Amino acid sequence: MQFGDLTIGQSATFTKTVSETDIVMFAGITGDLNPLHVNQSWAEQSQFGGRIAHGILTAGFVSTVIGMHLPGPGAIYLKQSLTFVRPVRIGDTVTARAEVIELVPGRRRIRLKTTVDNQRSERVVDGEALVMLAEANG
Amino acid sequence: MQFGDLTIGQSATFTKTVSETDIVMFAGITGDLNPLHVNQSWAEQSQFGGRIAHGILTAGFVSTVIGMHLPGPGAIYLKQSLTFVRPVRIGDTVTARAEVIELVPGRRRIRLKTTVDNQRSERVVDGEALVMLAEANG
Amino acid sequence: MQFGDLTIGQSATFTKTVSETDIVMFAGITGDLNPLHVNQSWAEQSQFGGRIAHGILTAGFVSTVIGMHLPGPGAIYLKQSLTFVRPVRIGDTVTARAEVIELVPGRRRIRLKTTVDNQRSERVVDGEALVMLAEANG
Amino acid sequence: MQFGDLTIGQSATFTKTVSETDIVMFAGITGDLNPLHVNQSWAEQSQFGGRIAHGILTAGFVSTVIGMHLPGPGAIYLKQSLTFVRPVRIGDTVTARAEVIELVPGRRRIRLKTTVDNQRSERVVDGEALVMLAEANG
Repeated sequence: MQFGDLTIGQSATFTKTVSETDIVMFAGITGDLNPLHVNQSWAEQSQFGGRIAHGILTAGFVSTVIGMHLPGPGAIYLKQSLTFVRPVRIGDTVTARAEVIELVPGRRRIRLKTTVDNQRSERVVDGEALVMLAEANG
Repeated sequence: MQFGDLTIGQSATFTKTVSETDIVMFAGITGDLNPLHVNQSWAEQSQFGGRIAHGILTAGFVSTVIGMHLPGPGAIYLKQSLTFVRPVRIGDTVTARAEVIELVPGRRRIRLKTTVDNQRSERVVDGEALVMLAEANG
Repeated sequence: MQFGDLTIGQSATFTKTVSETDIVMFAGITGDLNPLHVNQSWAEQSQFGGRIAHGILTAGFVSTVIGMHLPGPGAIYLKQSLTFVRPVRIGDTVTARAEVIELVPGRRRIRLKTTVDNQRSERVVDGEALVMLAEANG
Repeated sequence: MQFGDLTIGQSATFTKTVSETDIVMFAGITGDLNPLHVNQSWAEQSQFGGRIAHGILTAGFVSTVIGMHLPGPGAIYLKQSLTFVRPVRIGDTVTARAEVIELVPGRRRIRLKTTVDNQRSERVVDGEALVMLAEANG
């Protein structure tokens, strides 16, 4: 996407079912084997009543929307704020959404409202991203 | 760790070499196959001159420090702000660090300064986390 | 951990739920695609009535306790004996435990009793490890 | 393989190049993110001069020979002893070998000498396995 094609209010989404595999592999990549994510017995005794996904894993779907769709390739991530509102459980289908809320053409900056909702349209992650769009490659 | 054991200035770290495998698997989990991460030809033409790790992957190491060490199991992630300062390349060894900067005992809240540096002690990610520590399990 | 901090009877544990993902990935890494681990139809006809985890995968959690906690970084694995007592099934939550049973300060050797139990406190793996603790890095 | 087909001295092998991916994924499955395996900077300062594979990962190739070839499907792992003789580095090509050294027909037990050598024919793991061969499935 070219910077000139962006408009305030423009949005894009990415939806995925969060599997146990995603959680197990994310734990492996990051080393975050917090029992809330990888120990079912422990997690059942917690306030969540079972294993939940890492918050940062769920935030990764926001990165997907930005890096793949809005603005897509050429996006350079500058800032991301995240509020973890509700847990994401194994089998939940979450939709990450980014919406352009500010454009700074001179510096090629894009501010986006970024959210992740679950299959019951409950907000699970809230936040805001600041992205720069590089000049077209090649 | 119990809430009462926490003190301002307390810190913990986690260090890992970021491998191509980490990037490939993170791309697979999240669906963020932005060419900057998975297309070497494209990335070589970009301002970075080669593939770089997803910013959110690097942020995942902050989650590791919080979920595994400070405060460790029982940590409930409420907020995380992230500023992506420099790229992380394949083979870089990064150290995520969390340091307690504020404690709110009544609500069991912990505010932490969170950073990630590379093997040359250059800052790659800067930020702040807000965490709640659950009552001990069981 | 420093050698001088170790005492007879000291112990550490690591607990994880064994997922299908772990088994599939372990099969991929090692090439052990024995049908007992990756062929549900075959495994249902076996004496185990379903797929079970590789014994060596379960033994890997003992390595985690030793390499991460007791004695932790600096541990050099010299020997491990393993007796596979019961199968570990998909979804079982297992706890690996290492306990110091002998210390040889001159050669910096540590002998540990190593066990893995499931969520019903049934022994699944029994054994003994011999570890050397390297001088502190740096 | 049927028990009656086994003879003393019979052997089988499995050879694989150990990749960084294998180590990263094994760390993720087991939670053993000991810096000797996942932190290149730390490992370079260690006596090994760089990252090495987990000993239990290398032992996994013995499991492959037993579970896939000798005696193959139907093998039930009872015991394994392991001596870690030399480190395995990223890029090393190792050959696991099992050789029948004792047969107990009444109890369908097989004792095997189990070794792993590197591409320079240096022994990296030594050991012995005790296996039971189940009656044929079906």
